[in-house]
Amino acid sequence: MDTMKELRIMDQAVATPARADAPQPDVIRAMAIAARAAGRVLARSTTETRNRALTAAASALRAAQAELLAANARDVAAFTGAAAFRDRLTLNPERVEAMAQGLEQVASLPDPVGHVMAEWDRPNGLRIRRVATPVGVIGMIYESRPNVGADAAALCIKSGNAVILRGGSDSLNSARVIHAAMQAGLKAVGLPVECVQIPPDADRAHVASMLGAAGLIDLIIPRGGKSLVERVCAEARVPVLAHAEGLCHTYVHAAADLEMARRIVLNAKLRRPGICGATETLLVDQAIAPNILPGLIEDLATRGCTFRADARARDIVPDLPAATEDDFATEWLDAVLSVGVVNGVEDALAHIARYGSAHTEAIVTEDEAAAVTFLNGTDSAVVMWNASTQFCDGGEFGFGAEIGIATGRFHARGPVGLEQLTMYRYEVIGTGQVRP
Amino acid sequence: MDTMKELRIMDQAVATPARADAPQPDVIRAMAIAARAAGRVLARSTTETRNRALTAAASALRAAQAELLAANARDVAAFTGAAAFRDRLTLNPERVEAMAQGLEQVASLPDPVGHVMAEWDRPNGLRIRRVATPVGVIGMIYESRPNVGADAAALCIKSGNAVILRGGSDSLNSARVIHAAMQAGLKAVGLPVECVQIPPDADRAHVASMLGAAGLIDLIIPRGGKSLVERVCAEARVPVLAHAEGLCHTYVHAAADLEMARRIVLNAKLRRPGICGATETLLVDQAIAPNILPGLIEDLATRGCTFRADARARDIVPDLPAATEDDFATEWLDAVLSVGVVNGVEDALAHIARYGSAHTEAIVTEDEAAAVTFLNGTDSAVVMWNASTQFCDGGEFGFGAEIGIATGRFHARGPVGLEQLTMYRYEVIGTGQVRP
Repeated sequence: MDTMKELRIMDQAVATPARADAPQPDVIRAMAIAARAAGRVLARSTTETRNRALTAAASALRAAQAELLAANARDVAAFTGAAAFRDRLTLNPERVEAMAQGLEQVASLPDPVGHVMAEWDRPNGLRIRRVATPVGVIGMIYESRPNVGADAAALCIKSGNAVILRGGSDSLNSARVIHAAMQAGLKAVGLPVECVQIPPDADRAHVASMLGAAGLIDLIIPRGGKSLVERVCAEARVPVLAHAEGLCHTYVHAAADLEMARRIVLNAKLRRPGICGATETLLVDQAIAPNILPGLIEDLATRGCTFRADARARDIVPDLPAATEDDFATEWLDAVLSVGVVNGVEDALAHIARYGSAHTEAIVTEDEAAAVTFLNGTDSAVVMWNASTQFCDGGEFGFGAEIGIATGRFHARGPVGLEQLTMYRYEVIGTGQVRP
Repeated sequence: MDTMKELRIMDQAVATPARADAPQPDVIRAMAIAARAAGRVLARSTTETRNRALTAAASALRAAQAELLAANARDVAAFTGAAAFRDRLTLNPERVEAMAQGLEQVASLPDPVGHVMAEWDRPNGLRIRRVATPVGVIGMIYESRPNVGADAAALCIKSGNAVILRGGSDSLNSARVIHAAMQAGLKAVGLPVECVQIPPDADRAHVASMLGAAGLIDLIIPRGGKSLVERVCAEARVPVLAHAEGLCHTYVHAAADLEMARRIVLNAKLRRPGICGATETLLVDQAIAPNILPGLIEDLATRGCTFRADARARDIVPDLPAATEDDFATEWLDAVLSVGVVNGVEDALAHIARYGSAHTEAIVTEDEAAAVTFLNGTDSAVVMWNASTQFCDGGEFGFGAEIGIATGRFHARGPVGLEQLTMYRYEVIGTGQVRP
């Protein structure tokens, strides 16, 4: 019997209780098979049922606040990492309440499942509809922030997907309490608790099992640092939606409104330098560089920014430190800005093609033709005209919530919200047609 | 320097002529890097340019007819496989003309690139647009039929994608002439010839290189037998759009119009038993099985069909051979039909969930509630109500042409036409907005 057949038939066998003498099945494999069965029920549930599961989970989370804070205190006490990560790990009553409100907010969003994406009739009378469906089973791999698990579970339940949540081992005690609240919400409305699962322990082998679970897990979403995402992308045998880097560019074109350019560049770099939509490289057109660059550098420097500049930028502002080629390929995630002077839109596009990470790029210009050339000329998930790259965010896009941002070339790019967690099926409605 | 950076910077280096003492780069890697650069030009070309490239390629193919038939004759002379495969490999003047007309037909289809898929305004005045873009670089891996290469190249050019065509080694001489015609078409309109490439020789290692080219090739589309597709799915580190099997079901519900059911079942099984949309398993509701099954079996048997039936079907038609469990998991691709009797819609759905391949399923019924339950209850790419499963085809769906059929849960399912060969970007149009 070939592999696919064997898998189909075995999956049923594994889903029923194993004989005592049977080999112990892989934990993740068994979880994924249970998730598939649970997801089939979830996919067919009503919007109202899924929304009630989320509001019930929010109530359960609030009721479990003391238990969650105690579990979190054990995680924090055992934590030995850097202070910034400790802060992300730490919960308090406000953060627990925010998490519960997050679940309720996802409940209030429109249901993406069942949406008729397209519909048409054929000359033979067949009606064809493309209807949004859940993807199936999602594997979420994330680091220390416990709220990521709750947010991801909410988005998956709402979009009809079963999810396996593998958080950082540092937050396992917290994750268990959050998981219990999500399952309480599912149970309250009669949905299978296997719609949201976490591995039983912090064994790192579970991550490898998830990445290798082709055919059992349909989609992996990693959330965390670049090394986590790169490992996931390199090892996964399952499709991945992710971005490893946000090496975003802002290009100030020759026809830019200089005051607008200044406002956008300051925001794009410094509003929150550590987010993936922060601009890492400023490209200034040579036609206006002598005019704008000195003041812009001064404004940025006043606010604590440092620089790595190419030779042409240093001709204009000689004090700037010299950039290496590697600097232009570096996502600083800090108040550091690579600066280059370019010769027109095509030169800017060539720079972005060479060093960019296909995340978000912006042009500042009053010249529509230049803007259109720029928008059409990158390979990036998001391109902006006269706006700050920091707007690359599911909330800012109006998605209500996001599970991540993707920079691949497949299925979904940019902010990944509920709609991007769906797939589709075709429904063909006939009146007895047969094919000639 | 990390891998992604190194790749970005190296890609540029490889695209420029290598020094004589440099190590020989992997052939596929170099082709993919050239394809990326060519694809960027193609993605920005006008609809008119891409259409003219296709009509010029059609002319070049017609002009090369004698050369192509001679090359094909060499392929056929060297071929040692089965007669059916020899027929697929063999070209004649009519098949060459059909190939040329296929190119012209793709030219006449609407351009999917640049289509605004969604557009909305945010309260802060930002306008956000989701715009269809090419995927990038596609790797097509196919078997002996030479026209698959021409069809795939046409669909890729039209949708702005560069393509690497790896056909069967049996058809390499034919593929070279077809490839030259495609490149002549590109050249005629000033597009880079690297938009369509074939490996220089039939080395099987090129397939492995293509499957491993994560980040260089964006999408692999295999076309061929199940073993080819399964190998590709198992080994690829690049996303794959494909179906390994079409284990399609037709379920005759208790409220079926019996004459319609007969017409649909005969067509779904026997019109062309060897295509992936052919029905492999007939499920008949127990409420009407005694009524319809004997006559249906007789009609099918008269037309040469044989059967593998479960115990309940054999209770009604005792002469039917008994089916094993494996039979229900078998894609016959022949005039063989697995037959089962089921107890209502949920029982039919459970059978399909257990044995199906998520390709195409049909219900025959006059009961709308039962039909809706069925349509919502499968995991399959295509579900039909009162129509033959043989309608699962890009042409029948109105796509004009298809590059394949997909049964995965990611990016695209069902027939894959021009629209499914696109991805999207977000365009964000502002008036100087910065993020608070």
